[in-house]
Amino acid sequence: MTQAAAVSADIVLHNAFVVTMDGALTVLRDGAIAVVGDRIAAVGPSADVLGAFPGAAQTLNLAGRILLPGFVNTHVHTSQQLARGIADDVDLMTWLHGRIWPYESHMTEEDSYASTLLCGIELIRSGVTCFAEAGGQYVSEMARAVELLGLRACLTKSTMDCGDGLPPNWSSCSTDDCIQSQKDLYEKHHNTADGRIRIWFGLRQIMNATDRLLLETRDAAQELNTGIHMHIAEIPYENQFVMRMKKIDHGTVTYLEKIDFLRSNLLAAHSVWLNESEISHFSNAGVKVSHCPASAMRMLGFAPIREMLDSGVCVSLGTDGAPSNNRMSIVDEMYLASLINKGREAYISGTTNPTVLPSETVLTMATINGAKAVLWDNEIGSLEVGKKADLIVVNPFKWSMLPLHDCSIANTVYCMRSENIESVMCNGQWIMKDQKIMNVNLGGGNFFSSKESNCPPSASWHQPP
Amino acid sequence: MTQAAAVSADIVLHNAFVVTMDGALTVLRDGAIAVVGDRIAAVGPSADVLGAFPGAAQTLNLAGRILLPGFVNTHVHTSQQLARGIADDVDLMTWLHGRIWPYESHMTEEDSYASTLLCGIELIRSGVTCFAEAGGQYVSEMARAVELLGLRACLTKSTMDCGDGLPPNWSSCSTDDCIQSQKDLYEKHHNTADGRIRIWFGLRQIMNATDRLLLETRDAAQELNTGIHMHIAEIPYENQFVMRMKKIDHGTVTYLEKIDFLRSNLLAAHSVWLNESEISHFSNAGVKVSHCPASAMRMLGFAPIREMLDSGVCVSLGTDGAPSNNRMSIVDEMYLASLINKGREAYISGTTNPTVLPSETVLTMATINGAKAVLWDNEIGSLEVGKKADLIVVNPFKWSMLPLHDCSIANTVYCMRSENIESVMCNGQWIMKDQKIMNVNLGGGNFFSSKESNCPPSASWHQPP
Repeated sequence: MTQAAAVSADIVLHNAFVVTMDGALTVLRDGAIAVVGDRIAAVGPSADVLGAFPGAAQTLNLAGRILLPGFVNTHVHTSQQLARGIADDVDLMTWLHGRIWPYESHMTEEDSYASTLLCGIELIRSGVTCFAEAGGQYVSEMARAVELLGLRACLTKSTMDCGDGLPPNWSSCSTDDCIQSQKDLYEKHHNTADGRIRIWFGLRQIMNATDRLLLETRDAAQELNTGIHMHIAEIPYENQFVMRMKKIDHGTVTYLEKIDFLRSNLLAAHSVWLNESEISHFSNAGVKVSHCPASAMRMLGFAPIREMLDSGVCVSLGTDGAPSNNRMSIVDEMYLASLINKGREAYISGTTNPTVLPSETVLTMATINGAKAVLWDNEIGSLEVGKKADLIVVNPFKWSMLPLHDCSIANTVYCMRSENIESVMCNGQWIMKDQKIMNVNLGGGNFFSSKESNCPPSASWHQPP
Repeated sequence: MTQAAAVSADIVLHNAFVVTMDGALTVLRDGAIAVVGDRIAAVGPSADVLGAFPGAAQTLNLAGRILLPGFVNTHVHTSQQLARGIADDVDLMTWLHGRIWPYESHMTEEDSYASTLLCGIELIRSGVTCFAEAGGQYVSEMARAVELLGLRACLTKSTMDCGDGLPPNWSSCSTDDCIQSQKDLYEKHHNTADGRIRIWFGLRQIMNATDRLLLETRDAAQELNTGIHMHIAEIPYENQFVMRMKKIDHGTVTYLEKIDFLRSNLLAAHSVWLNESEISHFSNAGVKVSHCPASAMRMLGFAPIREMLDSGVCVSLGTDGAPSNNRMSIVDEMYLASLINKGREAYISGTTNPTVLPSETVLTMATINGAKAVLWDNEIGSLEVGKKADLIVVNPFKWSMLPLHDCSIANTVYCMRSENIESVMCNGQWIMKDQKIMNVNLGGGNFFSSKESNCPPSASWHQPP
C-alpha cells in the first residue's frame, strides 16, 4: 500500500478492481482507495487501506466493481451542445457556413450556459471528470456551468482576427482585443472553483489567425504558464491553403514549426493531415494531440494515430462538439479509436491489424495522456497518492460487459457503455452517485422534458378494469 | 389511417413519433398503432386509431416517444457470447486457431443454451426483435433460448466438410451428414414457437466446403424454401486461396458465380473483399449482404458498402459474435456504419464525405433491409397493417438524444444509445417493458451476479452514525 501521512479519511472505497493507470499500469484485485479532502490519501489492498483508515466518514464496499481515474475529454465544444442534430448528413461547407457559424454567432450568454450545462451532464454520465473546451464565445457562462456541475475544465475562448466568410459579428475582433480579452478571462476565472477551472488561450484555426495573433498567443500563454488549444491540420484544404499563402512545401504544421510556434503547452485538435516530418515536429516540440474518432470519420479523415504514438507524441481523446459526433461519450470514443485505427491498417498493409491500439493504449489515451494534454498530469489522470480524487465507479455486472474473463481493461474499452458508469467523483466530491447527477436538480426524473415541449417524462399505461 | 377489418384491439400505442419504414418512409407525428393478436391492425394519426379501437385491452400514451420497427440483426454467433473478451488485441490466426475454435469446439449443449440466452438478452436491450444466427453447433439449444425469450430468429448450424486445422471433433463430418443433420433440424424446429423460429442452411466459409456441399446446400435450401447463411470474402487470404485452388482470376464470389451457387436466398456475411464485377454478381442474383461494421474494422477491412447499395444490393446490419465486436448492439452498429463509410471516402476521393450513408439509409439497413435479408419482409421490417407486431419504443427525452431538432431519424442513428430503448414487442408480445426483460427472471436486479462469482448486485454504502 502507498499512503500519505496518517489522517482520518473522508471516504474509503474498497473491494474494487482498481485500475490505477500509474506508470507501471498497476491493477489491484480487491483494492481500495482512501480520499482525504480533495486528494487520494492511499491506494492499496482493501485490508490494508481499511486497516489504516478505520474511522472514515464514509466507507463504500464496491463489491468487485471497477475503479478508474476519471476520463479526460480533451476537445469538446460545450457551446455546440444545443446544435446537436442541426447539421447531419450535409457536406462540410454547408455544415460550417450554413449551420454552425450562424448558430454559434447568434447564441446568447444564457444559451451558452444552458448548452454547457447539458453538455456537462452528458460528459459526467460518460465518466468524464475533466475536459478541455475547444473554444466558444462566452467563457464566463461556461465557467458558471462547470462550477455548478463540479467538473474540472480548461476553458478557452475561440479567437479569430482574419479570414473570409465569417459571420458579421465575428469579423471585427482586432489582434489586440483577441489577446487582451483572454488575459481578462484568465484574470477573472483562472484557478477558481476550488482550483477546478483553468483558463487557456484559444486559436480557432490557421486560416483565421494572423502571424501576430499566433505569436502573441504563444508568448502570452508562456507568460501566464497556461496552455493553447487550436484546431490543426483538419482537412486537406487547410494544408493547401497554407502551402499557397505561405509558400511552404506542406501544411499547417510545417508552417507553425517554421515560425517557432510549436511548444509543449500546445494542444492540437484533430491533426489528421500530417506527414512524417510534421509528426516529428510535434514529437520534438512535445505538442499534445486530441484525437476525435467520430468527428474524424464523419468530417476529416484518418489521423496517423499509430505513427504519432510510435513517435512519442502524447495522443489523447476528445468527442468534439455535438454537431460533429453526435454522441458525446468518451466511452464511445475509446471503442471507436480502437476500431478505426485497427481498420485503417487495411489501407496501409492490405489487411487490418487487430493488435494495433490495444485496450491498454486506448485507456491510457483517455486518462493519463488526457491529463498530460491538459497540462494537469501532476494532479490528475491516474489513481496515485497525492493526486486529486477524480475517479469513476464502473459496474461491469450487466449483460453488456459479461462475462469478465480476467480482462477488465479490455472489457472497459471494448464492451463498456456509458450506462455502466455508476458514480463519478471530481476533486473529492461525488458529482454523480448511483447515476444521479448530484449538483443539478433534474426535476421529476427528466430535466429537459418540460410541459412546453409536450413530452411528459414517463409513458402512461391505461388498462380498463 | 390504414386499417385492417374491424375487430377489438389488444393494444393501442398512441401519441408517438411513428417511423414506419414503409416504402414511402412515412413518419407520423402524434401517430398510433393498433395491435390485434400478433399483427398490426392499424397505423395512423392517434385520434383516428383511438377512435377506431375504443375498447382496446391496453392503451398506452407514448407521450412523444419514437416508435420504430424492431431491428433485425442479420449476423450473430449466439454461441460465442460466453467468449466475449477471450480474444482481444490478438492477430487473426491466434484469434481463430488459438482462441475461438478451441472454445467453440468444447462447448456443451448447456453452454450453448446459456450463451444464446445471454446474447438474446443483450439483443433485446438494443432493440432487436429478429436475428439471423451465423452458425453454431447446437441449434436445438438456441431454439430453446429463443422460444423462451420471445425473439424471432433464423437459426443455422455451422457446417464444414473439408479444410485444414480444424479441431478434431469438427473434422469428421461427411457431406451427407452435413446436409442430413440440417434437414433433421428443419423438420424438428422450422416454424415452431408460434412461427418465430425458422431453420436455415449454414456454410461456414468456402475454405471448409467442398463443391458438393455447396451445391447440395443450394438445392436443399431451394427444396425447403429457406435461406443459406455463409461467410463470404472476409479476408484477402480467402480470395487468394480460392484463386490458387480453383484457378480463377478473383476471389470467392467469382467462383460461387461460376458454379451457379448465387441465389436470392443467400445471405452473405461481411463480403469485404469484392471487386466491381463481383458486386454485379451479387446484384444480379439478388444476394443479400450482412455488413458488420465493428467486426470489419477489427478483423476484416472496409467493405464496399456504398458501391453495393448503389448497385442495388440489399445490405443489412449485423453485430457478428461477441469476441469480434465486443459490443452486441445494432444501435452501435448503425452509428459505426454511418461513420466508417463516410470516413472510408477519404481513401477514395481524398476527403471524407458526410453525405454518404445518410441516417435514413442506415435505418433502412437495420430494419426493412434486414427483413429482406432474412427473407421475412412480407411480415416484418416495417410498421404496416397486416405485418407482425415487431416494434420498439425509444425514449429520446434523455441527455444523450437532446435536443430534438425535428430530425428523429438522424437522432436515432447518430445519438441513440441502447439505454434509450425502453420497450420491445415481438409477435404482438412485450418481451421488454420499461427496460425489464419479460420472459426470463433476472433475479434481484442482476441475473449474472450470483454469490459464486463474489459480485453482489449493488454496492453498499456504510456511514457511521
